Amino acid sequence: MKSPVRVTITGAAGQIGYQLAFRIASGQMLGNDQPVILQLLEISSAIKALEGVAMELDDCAFKALSSVIITDNVDVAFKDSNYAFLVGAKPRGPGMERKDLLQANAKIFSVQGKSINTHANRDIRVLVIGNPANTNALITSMNAPNINIGNFTAMTRLDHNRAIAQLAKKCGQHISSISRVIIWGNHSATQYPDIHHAIVSGKPAIEKFDREWLTSNFIPVVQQRGASIINARGSSSAASAASAAIDHMHDWILGTPDDDWVSMGIPSNGSYGIKPGIIFSYPVRCINGGYEIIENLEINNFSKKLILASEIELREERAAIEELL
Amino acid sequence: MKSPVRVTITGAAGQIGYQLAFRIASGQMLGNDQPVILQLLEISSAIKALEGVAMELDDCAFKALSSVIITDNVDVAFKDSNYAFLVGAKPRGPGMERKDLLQANAKIFSVQGKSINTHANRDIRVLVIGNPANTNALITSMNAPNINIGNFTAMTRLDHNRAIAQLAKKCGQHISSISRVIIWGNHSATQYPDIHHAIVSGKPAIEKFDREWLTSNFIPVVQQRGASIINARGSSSAASAASAAIDHMHDWILGTPDDDWVSMGIPSNGSYGIKPGIIFSYPVRCINGGYEIIENLEINNFSKKLILASEIELREERAAIEELL
Repeated sequence: MKSPVRVTITGAAGQIGYQLAFRIASGQMLGNDQPVILQLLEISSAIKALEGVAMELDDCAFKALSSVIITDNVDVAFKDSNYAFLVGAKPRGPGMERKDLLQANAKIFSVQGKSINTHANRDIRVLVIGNPANTNALITSMNAPNINIGNFTAMTRLDHNRAIAQLAKKCGQHISSISRVIIWGNHSATQYPDIHHAIVSGKPAIEKFDREWLTSNFIPVVQQRGASIINARGSSSAASAASAAIDHMHDWILGTPDDDWVSMGIPSNGSYGIKPGIIFSYPVRCINGGYEIIENLEINNFSKKLILASEIELREERAAIEELL
Repeated sequence: MKSPVRVTITGAAGQIGYQLAFRIASGQMLGNDQPVILQLLEISSAIKALEGVAMELDDCAFKALSSVIITDNVDVAFKDSNYAFLVGAKPRGPGMERKDLLQANAKIFSVQGKSINTHANRDIRVLVIGNPANTNALITSMNAPNINIGNFTAMTRLDHNRAIAQLAKKCGQHISSISRVIIWGNHSATQYPDIHHAIVSGKPAIEKFDREWLTSNFIPVVQQRGASIINARGSSSAASAASAAIDHMHDWILGTPDDDWVSMGIPSNGSYGIKPGIIFSYPVRCINGGYEIIENLEINNFSKKLILASEIELREERAAIEELL
């Protein structure tokens, strides 16, 4: 048996956490032969509910679950952590301005970044799910200067999976026949789901569709999918968000298939003209526990405009919390 | 790729269904190479929420998920079904007598039994999770005379897993060192969690504990675990119930380990003195897609009394709905 790894989940008693903890403990992130210690963080008022989650985790008798730590102390949650899912975030309250929301979250994530910097394993991989995810990931990374900045990522895998699902539905194909979709930019309504390089059953997807379908159907449907789920379920995406989070971490650690790629929000590095300073979603290939951007894709003017719009939004988000960096 | 199998979940938009559907679709019940068609049933008022669940299932881009059918028509839900999880049940309302509860559920499950009898695959395996699970399973089976009665089961695997977890905790051992616990009887507070045959790290568990710990700690803690979870979480066990349901069906289909057994609520057949006519939880070994009761275990007087108490409760439950059988 391998020695256990430590997996931190923040906001662990919430709807996403309640899905994520069990799927990780069941072995779906790292395999059933890799024991995990779950380190679950909640705010003090949710600790009793979190105790219930921990009791249920025990009651599953999962072979790969080594132990469960529950805490409202951020330093305990990140102690020696190898993998962190930052789910908990402050939601937008009534009358709250966008800038207030960004700043309220900036405070939460700067505390967590500092704690990671001091207490986590030096190779910790961090995935931010709590919104605004990209800018929250940026703040976390800026507060953890002793950890490689590339180890801080934001989740656009849910958008990536949604794009695959929409394309599969449109083509009447199973999702397994789709590859190479891309989510560019921010995990927000400015994200750009791009199928100019996508493959459907071995053929370029873009040849099948006109610009009209892209602009009036595919792109807005993917961008607005979160709102559609809320409208139907009465609450926001939880199971699918947790599933995407597991996909993101699983592929980052264990690699992407040779003929495909995934989308991850990662520190911009100048690729595709996105200068450093923001967390931007790119197509990436994961190999040997790391990731590399898929370079040299041809980007037409249609795509360039949409990528730029999402970049502008991310620069504005950064400006709103610049004084906290 | 194998041809898809059909998996029915009733009450699919509820908390247990919301866990179960995603874990099945992710391949945890039958493996990632077995495509599944999910047939999700809800009452009409929950169909919109169920649409949201189906959207999220699409958004997970699960390789093993072939398609999703959502319906409020019981016959559509059971059409050609290979595996059915009967989760939806009427909960006890204010002022409702036990007999009223049994009868209200008897009506729901007799409709479902008739539908299974007419529409399901002849080899369908049925697991009843909705309470009172054993008697609901009995009613379902009695309304499906053309299906082998042995294919109708009630879930005591959650209790089984809870017993393992409690024993592991008491011994300071990981759950993987525990085997051969038994849940006898009803999935209710009269269930008897029995460790007289359990093994901890290769040694008989019973040698480690006195009668006092059994009667004042282990047995009531396992019997009352559901209430403890409700007290902590503010809602009933969902993730752990879904996990146990997957364990139950997985092991039934794919087999139990050679040196262990599981607990399943199955039609009583006279074994251990429990005459036919109720669904009773026994220790069983699963092999070749079927199950067989572990026979000839020595049962002391302490255990006999507790097994009898649970049998009496099940006979009373049967009597309360006898006119509907």
